[in-house]
Amino acid sequence: MYFATYLENKVEKVGVLKDDGSRIIDLAIIFNKATITTMLNFIAYCTDDKLKEIEGYLENANSNDGIAIEDVKIIAPIPEPRRNVICLGLNYKDHAEELKNSLGEQAQIPKVPVYFTKMTSYIIGNNDKINRHVGITNEIDYEVELAVIIGKEGTNIPKENAEEYIFGYTILNDVSARDLQKSHSQWIRGKSLDTFTSMGPYIVHKSQLPLPLTLNLTCKVNDELRQSSNTKNLIFDIPYIISDLSRGTTLKPGDIIATGTPAGVGMGFNPPKYLGTGDSIVCTIEGIGTLINKVSD
Amino acid sequence: MYFATYLENKVEKVGVLKDDGSRIIDLAIIFNKATITTMLNFIAYCTDDKLKEIEGYLENANSNDGIAIEDVKIIAPIPEPRRNVICLGLNYKDHAEELKNSLGEQAQIPKVPVYFTKMTSYIIGNNDKINRHVGITNEIDYEVELAVIIGKEGTNIPKENAEEYIFGYTILNDVSARDLQKSHSQWIRGKSLDTFTSMGPYIVHKSQLPLPLTLNLTCKVNDELRQSSNTKNLIFDIPYIISDLSRGTTLKPGDIIATGTPAGVGMGFNPPKYLGTGDSIVCTIEGIGTLINKVSD
Repeated sequence: MYFATYLENKVEKVGVLKDDGSRIIDLAIIFNKATITTMLNFIAYCTDDKLKEIEGYLENANSNDGIAIEDVKIIAPIPEPRRNVICLGLNYKDHAEELKNSLGEQAQIPKVPVYFTKMTSYIIGNNDKINRHVGITNEIDYEVELAVIIGKEGTNIPKENAEEYIFGYTILNDVSARDLQKSHSQWIRGKSLDTFTSMGPYIVHKSQLPLPLTLNLTCKVNDELRQSSNTKNLIFDIPYIISDLSRGTTLKPGDIIATGTPAGVGMGFNPPKYLGTGDSIVCTIEGIGTLINKVSD
Repeated sequence: MYFATYLENKVEKVGVLKDDGSRIIDLAIIFNKATITTMLNFIAYCTDDKLKEIEGYLENANSNDGIAIEDVKIIAPIPEPRRNVICLGLNYKDHAEELKNSLGEQAQIPKVPVYFTKMTSYIIGNNDKINRHVGITNEIDYEVELAVIIGKEGTNIPKENAEEYIFGYTILNDVSARDLQKSHSQWIRGKSLDTFTSMGPYIVHKSQLPLPLTLNLTCKVNDELRQSSNTKNLIFDIPYIISDLSRGTTLKPGDIIATGTPAGVGMGFNPPKYLGTGDSIVCTIEGIGTLINKVSD
């Protein structure tokens, strides 16, 4: 099942895609509950039984149930998360290696996960613009990442049980201002400019993508293939991350964990290939979809 | 004016202290608005005119208006913030110097602010317990800090206008697991264990503490004075931080910025003086108050 957050006549709603992806059905209608207006509400409300109800509803739906995708604006699945987005740095071996020249000692293949966060005021979605931030950065970079959405509160989660705490998966473009990142020992400043987190278009429920995930992921800039790998190449895999991160730190429903990016970022080229105004970034993950954003002044 | 979040018969409320500090008045009653139940609601609602209304109400209050402080449980002013707590590292010269042995190159006196964040599931308040996290950390440390609470949304805020974007000030104890912090290049992991952010007891409105702030701050552990400095010793002062942080990154009402800690943390001693079960940490900032927490298994 593919879940989306969307604006219908400027009102935020959360819905499920019909099988052919052409129409979306409001979950508030399926459950006859007007309070299900955001993905965070829905994740808190969702249980296995509720998922079955959705499946049943979809099976019996008429062809004109829901609203056509073209008639709504799909926004980021969780545009205003409750906490910063949790990210892993250097979590693909080839990416850690390509950054040795730029980040020096910080870019060794990590022995423990490299966690940092992105502060977001509003997460942008598919087709939204990435702000060029003229005068603040000259080195904007892209990073395609698989993001895990937490579904259930948990602390000290064993690796074997990690999947139980997942709601689903989406695509995240961890846009980065490399000059700000390099001038600060802690990365958050260069990762947190407005519009520098893009996510979506959909959250795919975990039932559709059982662990371990072996999904191809790519990033193209203006049709040039820059990044191409597979989530099986993660240094620290999803169960390890959830288990390690939750040691003493409670994970909460709706938390977003971006699992890292493979080789091919702009900073890794010599000379670097940073983004400029008008560039289009196309992030694709097999089984999830494609997330497209353009850089705009 | 001193604002507090408190539980009255387990219901969360936000109130203002009466002048002698013995009683607290529910802001929902002052404004006859049942929706003012959290500090985040109130900060969003608060304007200069509303502050004048509160002042008028307090001037005309009877001695038995409100509820006695002993009859409520004061909790952290913002127990569940909308984003991670933003922190500055190494923002007092003497603290950066004391950490050279432990943190090496990372502990130089910074040329740009060292930003990191604390992920919190629930911020603890005065008299709440800090969890010892046996088996996860053996090096728990304290850090008394002045925290700035943002009052108004803003981006690219000039230094001269920074005060306009502040709601008020409080005390924050940036409890840290030094072993986790040292084993990760990015600090968030060692800063984000549950109960490792303590804040309060009150937010003092900015009108009471005009910039520049020259407030003595101290931290005692079991009556032993460990930290003693003055907020005038901040390397990057409050207007600079707000201006720098907001370049390209929108600050939001309710954001919490912990401005850094002076020398005297446990890690700075040789041998280090880390916290153990039963230790009591008493953080005091002149004009704001005292925040006390004990470590508990």
